[in-house]
Amino acid sequence: MSPDPARPFTVEPWLVREPKLDLDALGQVESVFALSNGHIGLRGNLDEGEPHAMPGTYLNSFYERRPLPYAEGGYGYPESGQTIINVTNGKIIRLLVEDEPFDLRYGHLHRHERVLDLQAGTLTREVEWESPAGRAVKVRSTRIVSLTQRAIAAICYEVEVLDAPALLVVQSELVANEQLPSRGDDDPRVEAALTDPLVAEQHRSDEAGATLLHQTRRSGLRVAAAMDHEVSGPNGFKTTSEATEDIGRTTIIARLAPGEKLSIVKYVAYGWSARRSQPALHDQVRAALAAARYTGWQGLLDEQRAYLDEFWTTADVEIDGDAELQQAVRVATWHVLQAGARAERRAIGAKGLTGEGYDGHTFWDTETFCLPVLSHLAPEAAADALRWRQSILPLAYERAEQLGVKGAAFPWRTIRGQECSGYWPAGTAAFHINADIADAVRRHVLATGDVEFEREVALELLVATARLWRSLGHHDSAGEFRIDGVTGPDEYTAIVDNNVYTNLMAQQNLRVAADTAARHARAAARLGVNAEEMASWRDAAKSMRIPFDEVLGVHPQSEGFTDHQVWDFESTPAKMYPLLLNVPYFDLYRKQVIKQADLVLAMQLRPDAFTPEQMKRNFAYYEALTVRDSSLSACTQAVVAAWTGHLDLAYDYLAEAALVDLNDLAGNSDHGVHIASMAGTWTAVAAGFGGMRNDGTGLQFSPRLPPALSRISFGLRWQGRQLRVEIRPEEAEYRLVSGPPMRLRHHGEPLALAEDPQIRPIGPVEWVEPVEQPHGRAPRARHPG
Amino acid sequence: MSPDPARPFTVEPWLVREPKLDLDALGQVESVFALSNGHIGLRGNLDEGEPHAMPGTYLNSFYERRPLPYAEGGYGYPESGQTIINVTNGKIIRLLVEDEPFDLRYGHLHRHERVLDLQAGTLTREVEWESPAGRAVKVRSTRIVSLTQRAIAAICYEVEVLDAPALLVVQSELVANEQLPSRGDDDPRVEAALTDPLVAEQHRSDEAGATLLHQTRRSGLRVAAAMDHEVSGPNGFKTTSEATEDIGRTTIIARLAPGEKLSIVKYVAYGWSARRSQPALHDQVRAALAAARYTGWQGLLDEQRAYLDEFWTTADVEIDGDAELQQAVRVATWHVLQAGARAERRAIGAKGLTGEGYDGHTFWDTETFCLPVLSHLAPEAAADALRWRQSILPLAYERAEQLGVKGAAFPWRTIRGQECSGYWPAGTAAFHINADIADAVRRHVLATGDVEFEREVALELLVATARLWRSLGHHDSAGEFRIDGVTGPDEYTAIVDNNVYTNLMAQQNLRVAADTAARHARAAARLGVNAEEMASWRDAAKSMRIPFDEVLGVHPQSEGFTDHQVWDFESTPAKMYPLLLNVPYFDLYRKQVIKQADLVLAMQLRPDAFTPEQMKRNFAYYEALTVRDSSLSACTQAVVAAWTGHLDLAYDYLAEAALVDLNDLAGNSDHGVHIASMAGTWTAVAAGFGGMRNDGTGLQFSPRLPPALSRISFGLRWQGRQLRVEIRPEEAEYRLVSGPPMRLRHHGEPLALAEDPQIRPIGPVEWVEPVEQPHGRAPRARHPG
Repeated sequence: MSPDPARPFTVEPWLVREPKLDLDALGQVESVFALSNGHIGLRGNLDEGEPHAMPGTYLNSFYERRPLPYAEGGYGYPESGQTIINVTNGKIIRLLVEDEPFDLRYGHLHRHERVLDLQAGTLTREVEWESPAGRAVKVRSTRIVSLTQRAIAAICYEVEVLDAPALLVVQSELVANEQLPSRGDDDPRVEAALTDPLVAEQHRSDEAGATLLHQTRRSGLRVAAAMDHEVSGPNGFKTTSEATEDIGRTTIIARLAPGEKLSIVKYVAYGWSARRSQPALHDQVRAALAAARYTGWQGLLDEQRAYLDEFWTTADVEIDGDAELQQAVRVATWHVLQAGARAERRAIGAKGLTGEGYDGHTFWDTETFCLPVLSHLAPEAAADALRWRQSILPLAYERAEQLGVKGAAFPWRTIRGQECSGYWPAGTAAFHINADIADAVRRHVLATGDVEFEREVALELLVATARLWRSLGHHDSAGEFRIDGVTGPDEYTAIVDNNVYTNLMAQQNLRVAADTAARHARAAARLGVNAEEMASWRDAAKSMRIPFDEVLGVHPQSEGFTDHQVWDFESTPAKMYPLLLNVPYFDLYRKQVIKQADLVLAMQLRPDAFTPEQMKRNFAYYEALTVRDSSLSACTQAVVAAWTGHLDLAYDYLAEAALVDLNDLAGNSDHGVHIASMAGTWTAVAAGFGGMRNDGTGLQFSPRLPPALSRISFGLRWQGRQLRVEIRPEEAEYRLVSGPPMRLRHHGEPLALAEDPQIRPIGPVEWVEPVEQPHGRAPRARHPG
Repeated sequence: MSPDPARPFTVEPWLVREPKLDLDALGQVESVFALSNGHIGLRGNLDEGEPHAMPGTYLNSFYERRPLPYAEGGYGYPESGQTIINVTNGKIIRLLVEDEPFDLRYGHLHRHERVLDLQAGTLTREVEWESPAGRAVKVRSTRIVSLTQRAIAAICYEVEVLDAPALLVVQSELVANEQLPSRGDDDPRVEAALTDPLVAEQHRSDEAGATLLHQTRRSGLRVAAAMDHEVSGPNGFKTTSEATEDIGRTTIIARLAPGEKLSIVKYVAYGWSARRSQPALHDQVRAALAAARYTGWQGLLDEQRAYLDEFWTTADVEIDGDAELQQAVRVATWHVLQAGARAERRAIGAKGLTGEGYDGHTFWDTETFCLPVLSHLAPEAAADALRWRQSILPLAYERAEQLGVKGAAFPWRTIRGQECSGYWPAGTAAFHINADIADAVRRHVLATGDVEFEREVALELLVATARLWRSLGHHDSAGEFRIDGVTGPDEYTAIVDNNVYTNLMAQQNLRVAADTAARHARAAARLGVNAEEMASWRDAAKSMRIPFDEVLGVHPQSEGFTDHQVWDFESTPAKMYPLLLNVPYFDLYRKQVIKQADLVLAMQLRPDAFTPEQMKRNFAYYEALTVRDSSLSACTQAVVAAWTGHLDLAYDYLAEAALVDLNDLAGNSDHGVHIASMAGTWTAVAAGFGGMRNDGTGLQFSPRLPPALSRISFGLRWQGRQLRVEIRPEEAEYRLVSGPPMRLRHHGEPLALAEDPQIRPIGPVEWVEPVEQPHGRAPRARHPG
């Protein structure tokens, strides 16, 4: 992770303020200020469209197909990929001041401030600008993507003339096939497939709005975008609209005297479908617009705040003693909510809907990092994401058959469900994604206690993945169950035997599938599960090989890993990181160098499989090898650092995870925010410092506060309850915010919790031998000394 | 290997006769009848150009660059590949008979016979054809690619009118940018790069010939082709020539009465260069033409036969008791000679110059299978191929640096020297190619005793490759020297630790480099080698890890291999082979299934590293796992089968290796012949049945005859001598054809050989436990019972 750049934001508890426009940080700020409800995503582009780093208007799962080329092909390589595309841009509002376009690159910018308000759920902007000809105007806009009305975004746009009368022309637009910066792809066919991806089908306008319908060229998806406006201002303004194939435009002309204000509320509605007809889709977005206008601008704002009030009651994490971290944790929670809130049986992508990074794909990190958090903060969003997985089971069965295995093989990366990975050693071979999905299912059932979900959704996913593992592994001559030739989470190691992470997760997958099938015997029978099959899962789980290096006293990440040469970190200058950009895979794979937590993640997710002593030794061993070239690492290292008594280090890692986008630590926040790292922030707090574990025997906490902080408080939903945990230096307080009495454990001791808060002491922290990171790869130290 | 198809050829000792035209076998026959001297290659296309399967005129190392695309790129992936291209076609001679084109697809074909004569080095053709209008002609053509005049091909073309007078027009052409069948590549950019690759630079004609100069569009190579004609026939024929950018054409018009003959000798000269100017290249080919005309047609034929008489004196293998195999072994030897004879410091490709398979690339098999044979049959050709490797050392040093290793990293596949592999797990990771080159160097020095070659060529190659191994491997904590994360010969296993083949070959590479440096201390010092470095090579060799499975009593092909699941051969139907076309790599890599000899090849090349008992057990173990989806396997299995007493099986494998193209066993002979399998035929005879070994302590033989054969005789060059070995059922005869007296060993017993032949008895063969192949993958049994 790179050192903090000069960050573009101020530190405030509930606001993210960009006090002045910084053209160099444009891409990062567009991502951090992206608004989304999980269905619609609008990057934080300026109202007038330019300057921009990357214009972005996304609809969840709306993609175009593109060729996947290979210098040397192979059986089972996917030939076609899926890429999220920029749909009809409905956030554009252009302004002409006496014939001069409002463009911040010209004239004088006296003030430019944008504020993301995490409690209001709005992005506001205030600009004072003087045109090259000397006309001064004040522009204030507020943008929301509604969390309550899924198809709706809205903008309130106000212009005031400051010193002299002026004729204003406001053009509010829908723009399809927007001209984008080049993707820099070296394959011209990919560029071609993604340039002007939308084919116009219909365009209409009425006095105050317009509707555009398009279909993608290859994937055959249809999108409708519609807008409507409410205008108020001095007498005599005029509103007209027009539409052509790729543009809908409402033009408002008004002459304003100094101090007068022109105020426009723009409602935008989106809908897409792979099946619905033009008239159906057209009417759908017009209906959404009608509902939004009925609710009104203030109504939308009120609904938004009420939704968020309810959310933050549970989800807010309070941190005393580090204002920057306090803000970052809230921003992280906000983006996790935005990614999942209204995704509703669609995938949650690695970047949410904040950018085009990773082509908009979803990976294993949604299940491993994001859903366990949503299960505790917004359980319906987690349930829906898992229902999406269930909905793509037919594709996963097909893929398994193609790969010669049984059960389901979920895609390593996808939008719609088909495998889109073009490099199988770090794609298809990473079968652990199937156990990761099963684990998210297991955690969700534990967190919610939702028996119907368990029977209708969880069971089928668990059975399908258990069948995969049973067929992917085999018993060796000594009777051990091996899983050979797969890739674990660490992408600097590939195609290995008995990756400990994979084997432990598969083991749990097999066990939980058998237990769940036993609990829902009739539903399981409908899936063809019988007692023999359940026994074969349990047997494989019981015989699962978990390699251990007796000489070093640690678990090798996979068979033989600890025999490999240790990477020469001393001779690796900082500019070589991330290594994958400067070193061939072959060299990374054959040496001990770790991109991201793998064995350490296994310890976080399967703490039951390690003794405390093993956990300490393993953590120290892998800490010295892990370079964190992936953002999917710091949060995990935070958790296990906290568990092994390295509280200061845990604090450093928590901050790294939380600040990844606010401080652009990975240098690529312009491609979208890092949803998994942000979700991991909550886990670092709750599981790490809170010591929260959740293994089926009940909820337990082992809270510990790092010396530099004076208080941490976090909340969660637990089987229909709302719970809050506060960690203070020498005690912890548990409070049931809502729901029936419950039992939990505090540092192993049972505790009954009802209406009254319970306070329990926290013992002193034992001293532990410090651990070391590879040369130059220690996290930035936040703790004093 | 598929069962024999109805083969298009008759069985004769020295001829390959195609008694009638079979349009379905066109591609295979074009490859088998391809003529080459290692510099020029002409596929066996019909004189008149069509019908064809693939027109082919190749110049060694004349290639075009093409893009190598990746769905997901990576550091160190080559961006540009090299593909052999069809250059100016000089073998076209079209005929018009009274306005009707001579085209075998029309009219009546009364007779069509082609004969490849392995002693004359010619391809002749005799046709009797009646035009749709009823005019009968007899055409006889003889084609040679001169082994003595490297730039020259020539055709003698005779037409006779059979029953009525006819006006004949013969058009003899040079055609550049010939229209080719589509490559079927799914990447249109590749198709584009290779369509019309030649840009015209110059065209000239004179009365009886023409010259064309072109340059490739991307690789910037320049090619000149020129032709000249000698015509004889009844009075009144007329010869004119013309040239345009892509066509040179000499037209001969003659009116023939029945029984009269028109006879044309066409001389074609080729030259290419990356540096020489148009005038220089133009003059070069005209000079070659002048020399050829000075020699004359009969002179070229005489030279060709004399060259081959000399060659066959040593190279001929006689087999009594199997006429088909006798022919096949000669054809195999012929193609190996053609591939290498006049390559002269250019690469010898996997298909020689007989087709475009594998893009015309050279791989490790040239060094492992082909050069050890040439070192004994045509030593200068082997020396030149190794000098080519030396000439690309600068590129290999560069590649090593890019990969983060020291010394030289030779390309897995290339024409000019740059890595062209687009799939690194089965390309760049197959580092064994470097030890294979070193081994070819070692064998060449042993075979020839050429001290100057050792000092000037061998030493540098050995040092460069030893340095690679020293840096690629490392000592583990137990002091063993490991080589992790590489791929051995078997392409159904990849990226493994301590591949036994690789480690044994690297061990020898390190030792021989140290020994050679010690013998040439001053030359070694100039390469920066000092005593410390030599000691570090010897030390690494001494500590080399060679894994052994104590439970099974066999060597695992690589670390952990024998723990993997055995492929389910019983459930794999014949149509699934070759597996790589129907199964993903991931499934092949993680199971015990072997494409081609790997550990067994290690036993062939490093017999000193195995006890006789290990060799037997290993052979039986790997025989049961090897499916021979590669043609680089049967010959090796033949050798080790013979050594372990499986003489019948060795005989079956020898036949499979020898017949690969005559019987199109791999189903892809249309892409070019399998040079390595053909070379392996000689090795199966000499090393397998002859028991020839060559380890620096002197030459030894342990001859054994399979019961079904009554005699095998083979010859070789040995340190300036010509030697012949004849194996009869109960005795072997050694004869020194030329050169000074020598010592050798017969079944371990010393034997002094001078003028008089020596006969020694062969003991009876011990009975051995039969071995088994995977279900359905046994070679076709030739032996009775």
